Amino acid sequence: MSSVSVIGRGITTFGKKDESIKSMLIKACREALLEAGRPNVDAVFVGNFASGSLANQEILGSVLTNELGLGNVPSVKMEGACASGGLAFRQAYQLVKAGEYKTVLVAGAEKMTGLDTETVTNAINLAMDNDSNEGSTGLTFPGFFGVLANRYMYEYGAEKRHLAMVALKNREYAIANPIAQFRKETSLEEIINSRLITDPLGLFDCSPISDGAAAVVIQKGQNGVEILSSGQASGTPLMQEVEDLLHISATYESAQKAYEAAGLGPKDIDVVELHDCFSMTEIIAIEELGFFEKGKGWEALEAGLTKHGGIIPVNTSGGLLSKGHPIGATGIAQIVQIVDQLNEKAANQVENARIGLAQNLGGTGAYSTVHIFRKKGA
Amino acid sequence: MSSVSVIGRGITTFGKKDESIKSMLIKACREALLEAGRPNVDAVFVGNFASGSLANQEILGSVLTNELGLGNVPSVKMEGACASGGLAFRQAYQLVKAGEYKTVLVAGAEKMTGLDTETVTNAINLAMDNDSNEGSTGLTFPGFFGVLANRYMYEYGAEKRHLAMVALKNREYAIANPIAQFRKETSLEEIINSRLITDPLGLFDCSPISDGAAAVVIQKGQNGVEILSSGQASGTPLMQEVEDLLHISATYESAQKAYEAAGLGPKDIDVVELHDCFSMTEIIAIEELGFFEKGKGWEALEAGLTKHGGIIPVNTSGGLLSKGHPIGATGIAQIVQIVDQLNEKAANQVENARIGLAQNLGGTGAYSTVHIFRKKGA
Repeated sequence: MSSVSVIGRGITTFGKKDESIKSMLIKACREALLEAGRPNVDAVFVGNFASGSLANQEILGSVLTNELGLGNVPSVKMEGACASGGLAFRQAYQLVKAGEYKTVLVAGAEKMTGLDTETVTNAINLAMDNDSNEGSTGLTFPGFFGVLANRYMYEYGAEKRHLAMVALKNREYAIANPIAQFRKETSLEEIINSRLITDPLGLFDCSPISDGAAAVVIQKGQNGVEILSSGQASGTPLMQEVEDLLHISATYESAQKAYEAAGLGPKDIDVVELHDCFSMTEIIAIEELGFFEKGKGWEALEAGLTKHGGIIPVNTSGGLLSKGHPIGATGIAQIVQIVDQLNEKAANQVENARIGLAQNLGGTGAYSTVHIFRKKGA
Repeated sequence: MSSVSVIGRGITTFGKKDESIKSMLIKACREALLEAGRPNVDAVFVGNFASGSLANQEILGSVLTNELGLGNVPSVKMEGACASGGLAFRQAYQLVKAGEYKTVLVAGAEKMTGLDTETVTNAINLAMDNDSNEGSTGLTFPGFFGVLANRYMYEYGAEKRHLAMVALKNREYAIANPIAQFRKETSLEEIINSRLITDPLGLFDCSPISDGAAAVVIQKGQNGVEILSSGQASGTPLMQEVEDLLHISATYESAQKAYEAAGLGPKDIDVVELHDCFSMTEIIAIEELGFFEKGKGWEALEAGLTKHGGIIPVNTSGGLLSKGHPIGATGIAQIVQIVDQLNEKAANQVENARIGLAQNLGGTGAYSTVHIFRKKGA
């Protein structure tokens, strides 16, 4: 099996930005290409969810390739809801590993701010199966994950303050991350008492509306953080078809595939970025990824096991909750943080981090990708 | 190099359909899977341009995978304007060739009718670089290709009736194709005198607004029409950056790559489906693909060289002009027609067709894919 490595990374600040999606993409890509030493690029993959609805722009692959002056190289946009970035990265990795391309630029971006709430909510709901009665009868993503949170608390004895512990941890990490959207200190009390979005999720339990872009350059060889494996799984996009509300099967199965392909398990992972679109989603993800037993994730939060000094530092970037969640950028931004960790250049650096994992979820569990990385020479 | 073949194909009728994009996708896929003998499917790739804007639905990969009961297999949507289908097919082919997957379902679809003209025109214009002054100052796709047509006529001496000959040929082919949108007989006179859309292009020179879906199953091995090669190129999405209006570089370069990879040239091709979004585009494409010299395409039409009994039968399906152009479906529908030709089951069958080619264009030349196919056992 031939090696593939991340040889450059770039990222914009996340938040409300007075900047077009094209401009953000260009900035992130230029930074990544510069760090990679301006290699010849053989193909360009862009992860994006809803630029047509939100940014009046499709064909981001061609727009980006042209604006960067990369010539006539193949380019394409990949869409898979909030997993669009992870999906684009996966295709690029598979094709470099296979020898189809030597060097590929992978970028992700979303422009979401500056629109009215209804437009943005409708666009986000494009990540449900709208040829069903769910979205049309009022289901939203906060609604879905709110139901999960209530069920989780009922089944396992967790309380609202355990959700808040996720939000607090990620905010504390975000404070040290210069690109994060929210860097203001907060407290467990402020989080618990914040405005209710959908019972039991409050404002701090929900990832924000964000603009931003991120990019990586990957290349055949071992000249950077090595990509050890990629796992992807689909799941039902319909709530009514979910067999067990507290089991996000795509997350579990994508992780199993990635662990198996890398010959590693949860105990080998030193640092992880995972998809905390809601605080509840992080608790389920640390269980599905195998770091904690099912139903015990909240106890890990209580015991501080998912941060520095615990068992596995989770979302040291600040996560979607506080770093921000420009949908198409998220999967690539997670990888940027893991690469930074393994290059010893991260905000909230984890000492002696050798193996990292990034997990990117789409929809209510419609898609999940997991990628595992190893420090150069480690 | 290991072989990859198309082992099943499915397609809906094209036109104004009272049916959702999901429903159309399912029908085309079920037909393709049935013909393929219901194999285990390892991944699902969907080509689609603007389902978010036009059909209130993203995550088509997951929706389709779930509805077909294919389990948790990886799935993703690919977008590259009108080349979305060709791009999805290319990724699937590359990954099967590389051994990442054994059997992949590739589908394309678009739902475009039932909306007001402004909504549809705005959605189609998402295939321009809207972070520029072009779309905002009124440029549309008919406008772009109308400028090309005027320039072509000025440079090479072609007349409006040569454009009409493209439309007439494709309509005559469509009459025999049961899935085609327009199957009513017409005449050169009716076409020339039809309502002007953008000078010099009349109604019959422009592909219609259509609904439809198409699908193929591809598999490692030689158990079907073999895929010999794939070529892809990007080009500028901006009219102001085009160096030569009468040279669509992405079409030329994607063809060169595909010819080279297959070890074949234009003279080896027995039947072709190419991207006639406008009559003018077909004339340029037969030149870029190397069937006729630059500036001589119109003479080939005049001499009847692009139909049965000529040099190369072009768009025997009826083409985008008369078969219809549900954007995301088009690239796959072209491949369905080539596969049908090479399986001796096509509308307008070309006798002794051994090698076929499909070319799919995106935007004003932002993307092009070319795939070359060989008859089973030939």
